[in-house]
Amino acid sequence: MSKRVGIVGGSGYVGGELLRLLLFHPEVQVTQVTSRRYVGRYIHQIHPNLRGVTDLRFKSPDDLEACDVIFVALPHGETASGLDQWADLAAYIIDCSPDFRLRDASDYKRWYGRDHEAPEMLSHFVYGLPERHRAQLTEARYASGVGCNAVAVILALAPLAEAGLLETATVEIKVGSSEGGSLANDASHHPERSGVVRVYSPSGHRHLAEVEQELGSIPIHLTVTAIEMVRGIHLTAHCFLRSGSQLREEKDVWALYREAYAEEPFVRLVASRTGLYRYPEPKLLIGTNYCDIGFALEKGSEVLIVMAALDNLVKGAAGSAVQSMNVMLGWDETTGLSFPGLHPV
Amino acid sequence: MSKRVGIVGGSGYVGGELLRLLLFHPEVQVTQVTSRRYVGRYIHQIHPNLRGVTDLRFKSPDDLEACDVIFVALPHGETASGLDQWADLAAYIIDCSPDFRLRDASDYKRWYGRDHEAPEMLSHFVYGLPERHRAQLTEARYASGVGCNAVAVILALAPLAEAGLLETATVEIKVGSSEGGSLANDASHHPERSGVVRVYSPSGHRHLAEVEQELGSIPIHLTVTAIEMVRGIHLTAHCFLRSGSQLREEKDVWALYREAYAEEPFVRLVASRTGLYRYPEPKLLIGTNYCDIGFALEKGSEVLIVMAALDNLVKGAAGSAVQSMNVMLGWDETTGLSFPGLHPV
Amino acid sequence: MSKRVGIVGGSGYVGGELLRLLLFHPEVQVTQVTSRRYVGRYIHQIHPNLRGVTDLRFKSPDDLEACDVIFVALPHGETASGLDQWADLAAYIIDCSPDFRLRDASDYKRWYGRDHEAPEMLSHFVYGLPERHRAQLTEARYASGVGCNAVAVILALAPLAEAGLLETATVEIKVGSSEGGSLANDASHHPERSGVVRVYSPSGHRHLAEVEQELGSIPIHLTVTAIEMVRGIHLTAHCFLRSGSQLREEKDVWALYREAYAEEPFVRLVASRTGLYRYPEPKLLIGTNYCDIGFALEKGSEVLIVMAALDNLVKGAAGSAVQSMNVMLGWDETTGLSFPGLHPV
Amino acid sequence: MSKRVGIVGGSGYVGGELLRLLLFHPEVQVTQVTSRRYVGRYIHQIHPNLRGVTDLRFKSPDDLEACDVIFVALPHGETASGLDQWADLAAYIIDCSPDFRLRDASDYKRWYGRDHEAPEMLSHFVYGLPERHRAQLTEARYASGVGCNAVAVILALAPLAEAGLLETATVEIKVGSSEGGSLANDASHHPERSGVVRVYSPSGHRHLAEVEQELGSIPIHLTVTAIEMVRGIHLTAHCFLRSGSQLREEKDVWALYREAYAEEPFVRLVASRTGLYRYPEPKLLIGTNYCDIGFALEKGSEVLIVMAALDNLVKGAAGSAVQSMNVMLGWDETTGLSFPGLHPV
Repeated sequence: MSKRVGIVGGSGYVGGELLRLLLFHPEVQVTQVTSRRYVGRYIHQIHPNLRGVTDLRFKSPDDLEACDVIFVALPHGETASGLDQWADLAAYIIDCSPDFRLRDASDYKRWYGRDHEAPEMLSHFVYGLPERHRAQLTEARYASGVGCNAVAVILALAPLAEAGLLETATVEIKVGSSEGGSLANDASHHPERSGVVRVYSPSGHRHLAEVEQELGSIPIHLTVTAIEMVRGIHLTAHCFLRSGSQLREEKDVWALYREAYAEEPFVRLVASRTGLYRYPEPKLLIGTNYCDIGFALEKGSEVLIVMAALDNLVKGAAGSAVQSMNVMLGWDETTGLSFPGLHPV
Repeated sequence: MSKRVGIVGGSGYVGGELLRLLLFHPEVQVTQVTSRRYVGRYIHQIHPNLRGVTDLRFKSPDDLEACDVIFVALPHGETASGLDQWADLAAYIIDCSPDFRLRDASDYKRWYGRDHEAPEMLSHFVYGLPERHRAQLTEARYASGVGCNAVAVILALAPLAEAGLLETATVEIKVGSSEGGSLANDASHHPERSGVVRVYSPSGHRHLAEVEQELGSIPIHLTVTAIEMVRGIHLTAHCFLRSGSQLREEKDVWALYREAYAEEPFVRLVASRTGLYRYPEPKLLIGTNYCDIGFALEKGSEVLIVMAALDNLVKGAAGSAVQSMNVMLGWDETTGLSFPGLHPV
Repeated sequence: MSKRVGIVGGSGYVGGELLRLLLFHPEVQVTQVTSRRYVGRYIHQIHPNLRGVTDLRFKSPDDLEACDVIFVALPHGETASGLDQWADLAAYIIDCSPDFRLRDASDYKRWYGRDHEAPEMLSHFVYGLPERHRAQLTEARYASGVGCNAVAVILALAPLAEAGLLETATVEIKVGSSEGGSLANDASHHPERSGVVRVYSPSGHRHLAEVEQELGSIPIHLTVTAIEMVRGIHLTAHCFLRSGSQLREEKDVWALYREAYAEEPFVRLVASRTGLYRYPEPKLLIGTNYCDIGFALEKGSEVLIVMAALDNLVKGAAGSAVQSMNVMLGWDETTGLSFPGLHPV
Repeated sequence: MSKRVGIVGGSGYVGGELLRLLLFHPEVQVTQVTSRRYVGRYIHQIHPNLRGVTDLRFKSPDDLEACDVIFVALPHGETASGLDQWADLAAYIIDCSPDFRLRDASDYKRWYGRDHEAPEMLSHFVYGLPERHRAQLTEARYASGVGCNAVAVILALAPLAEAGLLETATVEIKVGSSEGGSLANDASHHPERSGVVRVYSPSGHRHLAEVEQELGSIPIHLTVTAIEMVRGIHLTAHCFLRSGSQLREEKDVWALYREAYAEEPFVRLVASRTGLYRYPEPKLLIGTNYCDIGFALEKGSEVLIVMAALDNLVKGAAGSAVQSMNVMLGWDETTGLSFPGLHPV
């Protein structure tokens, strides 16, 4: 019998992606979706791609009823305060916000500039990235969200970091406009946002908190740049390897990354010698749960260039959340996540 | 037991979409894909979105073996000459080219400028648009392709034409660059093609032949304009109604179109009073098999504005082909075609 | 000695273009620019392309001082109320708003839904399109703005209309996002606006009021569609010619349009048999004051397809305003308007 | 009296930009333009933005006649072989190709993989970047081209390098499709090129040869990535400063860069605390000769993030060439280069 799923905060972009994925997920039934702003409106009025797919309407979060799994896609800071209510209603809670990503409340304060509202709950959440915490998720009832940029950095650099090969890295991430959420602002006005190459975070991006938690205290210098793109993240990392690293040729890098990811259903290694799509390319991943990773070794130096791409709303948010649910509930991890992406697009 | 499917001419954009749809179709198994140019190459080297999805390689069309259904996605003029070979190999043939769309060989000559190579076969093909020929397809073994622009015009105007309400229409269709196929040329060079609003067919587009065959001899004045878009077709038609038409208010138009399409799984009526997506919008349909249709009645005139949108590679090609197969083989018509599209994108 | 120019309402997109053009105009000196919202801010903080070009700051409109020419680029409805003040300060006033485009106050009420605030001034304004009112502008002290879409329709169809050849026309205009102005809203949010083909005015667009005033009461059915573009207007018109029109071949159309526009510095006829840029193309006109016009005669019908393109912020607004000033002050009409546009772009 | 200018290889994108700039340059007259491919064709047939601007036609390079200045915009490897001919025809030669950028023929062989064809001429050329070689250009008769990516790196990092502050840097450059030239290929096919984030040079880009020549042997790790853009270069550099560098706060960086560039007409420092355009943005520079440079100091590390933007066809090619001509012929350096760029765009 299919599990009943509720989505709290279903009107934003992550909420929309949760709906797109869960409405077609064979093990679950979406029974309720909340939005304080759009109570009573049909879902397809806000998520026009779902026209004809569902007749659900948004309800008030105050009217949420018991179900099996609750997904939360609220803005930063709003999950912690609602947690008690939802814990009474569902056995499983999967958050997409930043609120429960960091294990240590003091890290939260340092990066988000305020006290955590439910520090006692932090230890109940597992970081919702199955590639890193699969075993824990199997046992967990609560999973945290993941930062979309953090996922790219973590998956791209983890093999190097875990092998003790990474001295330091500079990372340039290019992002699309959907990363900024569904609310309009001066910076998102089409004539101003269109065609930009706009460094909006030269350094100190908050997602580094998650990266540090996962990879340890390796110095990672991260810039984030908005480009002409709606969905997608592309990462280019210059990795300074520890001197004397065993990565002398690209086949050594292949071996290291294959060992890390060969069994992962959603991590693909992309580093071809020929063809147009030699390295990871975010446009191919639109709508998919893949994180593609590639690399190239610089000649005559100890620098490895690592590239990665993913869809910020899927692998960087709703897709990893659904994947985490699959793990937590014991289903095939890829269930409901098989869309392969489009070409050309 | 699943049906074995072969794809002839699988390296182009329509071939790629056939693969994307058929590799996930629960009733079929893709057993062979041909490409004269790429014999021996992995499919994902040409269709990079299928990386990790299939290990198939392209084979020579000369090595095609028996199977249950053959899809043909060859350039114009190449299907007619291969038909005999494929007819020996498979019971069902579904073409995507223009070769068997027109019932009358003289029409072919008039619009394509040369004699048809297999005129005796024309009567065996049913025009592969289930919304128009469902009953015939149920009995058919061969289905023709459909012109992507023709599908938009036919579905948008058919209810008016069949009700005898349409005096004449002017139609402006905007198309994306994938409509030009997968081969590069001067006009498709990114710096030249990017950002264009380029009328490439002011009048006399070949797809009008199909429109005339379906809708009769109503004068339709069609321009086709390339815009900044990869996938997608958007149609705006100014329909001059017969004077004294009963379409006095928009609810009359709703009634007419609802009657025509209420049962159609892939035609949606989109004409809202509010919201951002009030009318059909091709970007929402990327990857889907929908044709969305909307309309607005001009005040003080007998002009009805009809709008339509679809994905030229799906509803305008591979999707209608798969839908036709579903009808021909007696499966649920929506099988394998449930991708709802993305938002935002 | 150069003339002193003031710009009222200089923070919007039209204000920005006026500044770009006037700061390099050899006959004038921009001495003051107002913006109620940005008093005291440097101009380049709002118009970043002018960084290093001027040290002017915005001042309050209340502090406006005497000068020779005042350009007004305020939102609809705000010019009429300020007119008395500016008339005391400058001999020449060139408006860019819709407030003084229509000669008849009752037309204003019909199209804009409210009474005109200064109907007694309407007769003092000349419609600011030199291609249509050059002689009057030579004598005028006040010029009105022009509707960007109206300019495209008027210039595209005037030769036909004036020759009495036009029975009726359907017009599809595609526009960029800058036409919506500089203020963000839900519809202009990049993830929602990017890649759209969005019919935002199926019929009854206000600019038709200007078209009717210029071309007479020919039925013109106009839709306006937003596409992926920041600047630019592209028009496709299907013109139903009066039966028995003398336009039997394209050379007849050439003759008609050449007669109309051969001496016009900013109207170019573009209808080539070869090349990528056979017809008008808005991207080539970005930043320029050109309106390019092309045409194609449909075979076997009495339909002429006319195409036109222009930059909505230049020929459709600030450029025509500067051109009008040049005419009004007796300067070479092209002064300050020689930027030829870019390719590729 | 104006100088007569000839352009050799005028049909490509750099040739087109030379024409756009030189046709409006008040000190020169373009008297001849060559193109082997397009002999006899009007210039505006190839450069459609110049329609109505000039009636010149392309002539064969074999028919080149004497003039005052010859600009050469031929593909790599073709300048060296023609040099003797042009030296007989004109006193000044300004090349845009890579052929004479490197002073040392052995560097040429190392980076371009073949022997230089006219090594004896290398010493006659001055690197055509006035910001670096103004004094030499004043005396020079021959100027070399500059690499568009090289200009961005050199101008962005020179102040740090010359002050001995730069230990090493990683540089990520994003480029538009016009950087690939005017000839179509599989990678430039619009459906494939549109929307990409494609690392096409992970390391070892040839323009590093110029960077090394200008900045010395500082290790610079450069990746070049194609993004959705036609014109424009955007650079993000992570600069590892020598430990104990005096750059402790951003005002120190401002001081260093101001000292370097305060007098430069085409280098602007852009690092604002507020506004949408806080850092360099290539779209604002389309058509201009500016190189905008910005920076941000990372807290708690010795890493300075430097950003730069320019138009690859102007400051990265034709604009620097015209600027060099202005210096060489003793004219105001900004002559003909005052276009300020557009906003919005």
